Amino acid sequence: MRATFMYGAGDVRVENVPDPRIEAPTDAVVRMVLACVCGSDLHPFHSMPAAEQGVPMGHEFIGVVEEIGAEVTGLAPGDLVISPFSFSDNSCAFCRDGLHTSCVNVGWFGGGGAGGVQAELARVPQAAGTLVKIPSDVDEALLPSLLTLSDVYLTGWHAAHMGKVTPGSTVTVIGDGAVGLSAVLAAKQLGAERIILMGRHTSRTDLGREFGATDVVAERGEEGVARVLDLTGGEGSPVVIEAVGYLPAYEQAYGVVRPGGIISRVGVPQYEEAPVGFGSLFGKNVYLTGGPAPVRAYVEQALPEVLKGAINPGRVFDRTVTLDDVADAYRAMDTRAALKVLVRP
Amino acid sequence: MRATFMYGAGDVRVENVPDPRIEAPTDAVVRMVLACVCGSDLHPFHSMPAAEQGVPMGHEFIGVVEEIGAEVTGLAPGDLVISPFSFSDNSCAFCRDGLHTSCVNVGWFGGGGAGGVQAELARVPQAAGTLVKIPSDVDEALLPSLLTLSDVYLTGWHAAHMGKVTPGSTVTVIGDGAVGLSAVLAAKQLGAERIILMGRHTSRTDLGREFGATDVVAERGEEGVARVLDLTGGEGSPVVIEAVGYLPAYEQAYGVVRPGGIISRVGVPQYEEAPVGFGSLFGKNVYLTGGPAPVRAYVEQALPEVLKGAINPGRVFDRTVTLDDVADAYRAMDTRAALKVLVRP
Repeated sequence: MRATFMYGAGDVRVENVPDPRIEAPTDAVVRMVLACVCGSDLHPFHSMPAAEQGVPMGHEFIGVVEEIGAEVTGLAPGDLVISPFSFSDNSCAFCRDGLHTSCVNVGWFGGGGAGGVQAELARVPQAAGTLVKIPSDVDEALLPSLLTLSDVYLTGWHAAHMGKVTPGSTVTVIGDGAVGLSAVLAAKQLGAERIILMGRHTSRTDLGREFGATDVVAERGEEGVARVLDLTGGEGSPVVIEAVGYLPAYEQAYGVVRPGGIISRVGVPQYEEAPVGFGSLFGKNVYLTGGPAPVRAYVEQALPEVLKGAINPGRVFDRTVTLDDVADAYRAMDTRAALKVLVRP
Repeated sequence: MRATFMYGAGDVRVENVPDPRIEAPTDAVVRMVLACVCGSDLHPFHSMPAAEQGVPMGHEFIGVVEEIGAEVTGLAPGDLVISPFSFSDNSCAFCRDGLHTSCVNVGWFGGGGAGGVQAELARVPQAAGTLVKIPSDVDEALLPSLLTLSDVYLTGWHAAHMGKVTPGSTVTVIGDGAVGLSAVLAAKQLGAERIILMGRHTSRTDLGREFGATDVVAERGEEGVARVLDLTGGEGSPVVIEAVGYLPAYEQAYGVVRPGGIISRVGVPQYEEAPVGFGSLFGKNVYLTGGPAPVRAYVEQALPEVLKGAINPGRVFDRTVTLDDVADAYRAMDTRAALKVLVRP
């Protein structure tokens, strides 16, 4: 089959490799119908040292089950399924708490226990716990929105959920990438009354307004902080969603958060150390939270909303490539020529 | 009057200075009945560079109102009062939220807007919002416990409150100092079922057991983390209270916290940067919170519990000095010869 590998910064290749096979009785093999490129795929695209061995890429996909292991229940070949970006048994203590990314059997597509899914076929460990069936006769126009339940929309949802957004909340979302815009839509769905979107790209913030943003702040750093404080009567934002992952966005987050408020991060941190002392989090009695989204916990609730057209999170996709051209997708997203790119086989 | 000043690490002096006076119409002047030395007073006692000008010390006290400014309501000379360690107007938006340490008129005894209170007299700004009356005929034996409502017990309470301790909770408290022990007592009051106290000083952890600790872990670092994981079925502690303020305690906290759990810090961080990325907080979807305790928000609820003898948080005091000997109190606490020391005029 053809599959995507990264060999270093800027070096994405599609190669012919052996088809994945059932390795454990809990595995399934799934044929890709639709996949996409994630903002987090761009991190190695920027910084990965050149390597002899390519890293398998991709972790978001919809596909058709080809084959199942002997212990996989509830699935059959031919089923159309969504796969969360991490796999989990959906039965351990952490899964029961809705924290599937801490599952005792957790693993990650793209090298964390399974291959990448920007590929014709994918092996899915813990298939019964991981894959979620969708109607086989679903309107094809809904597939992009359904694909967002694999990661991006539900990562935005996770940010809002961990930020404890409730009806009437004031929320500031830092970042106008696909995750930030998804967080705007999720906050709106959870009843937020005021949603301040911090971003500089008008085409993106325009979509953010359609998703529910009531205010857009293009300024960054101290100027951006001052603008948000101004918009919140000098008090700051009770909920702040940080959907970028770089330190300046984190600093912006603790600058705009209201004392006693919550900063919820879903941009994968490209830093390990950050300010947490009296001058940043402690003095204000802030809550800092967030992490990898337990998409599996949210997908069943979001699915009917997408199927009935109540939300259309797939609007974050603004380009489509075929698998052979996936490197173009990385470049387009890297140069911000595209927001998020679909990949067809 | 006599008042306490620090001139550098290890250099605490009691000096004669002019009596404080009413400076603003919202001020009161209060004569000290009982004060004490705080664990946070030991930080400058360790590290303060030698200075020509001494820093006024002390922020916990009970006293008798001597004089009030023209705009002070609800208080009169002769009233016996508890003073929180920070002052606040008790009426702004943040105070109404119970976050008095973020009051728009907040200030701190010992140099943050008012003098120190290891002194015969103290000027209290925002007196009407800050001071809480207690019965003038109160049993003198209750004064030490009442004094803990100025800071230490309610700082422990704040840790448990921000950590969202509820009936049945499992809580790990890191640190067997007076704040850690207070947090044990507060967690018990809030209904925690299991309280794991991490501390190495048997006389202190014994008091911790009396306050409600169900398990004591003397090991630190990786060994301590392994012990707590073992005690919690390998899952970790849903609530972790960090009552130390040094980086190793913070690292211990994210080591023992359960995925999705809360780390609540009340030890004033002696660091500004710390790990917050995938390997510490993010990967586990942890909540990190805590900060300076809004004691004023909790004092009215705790007061009757102390007055009726339902709790006895004053047991953290194990020595008493007179003001003239306050330097001995610092030394005794610094060498751990004393847990927490009362100061009488």
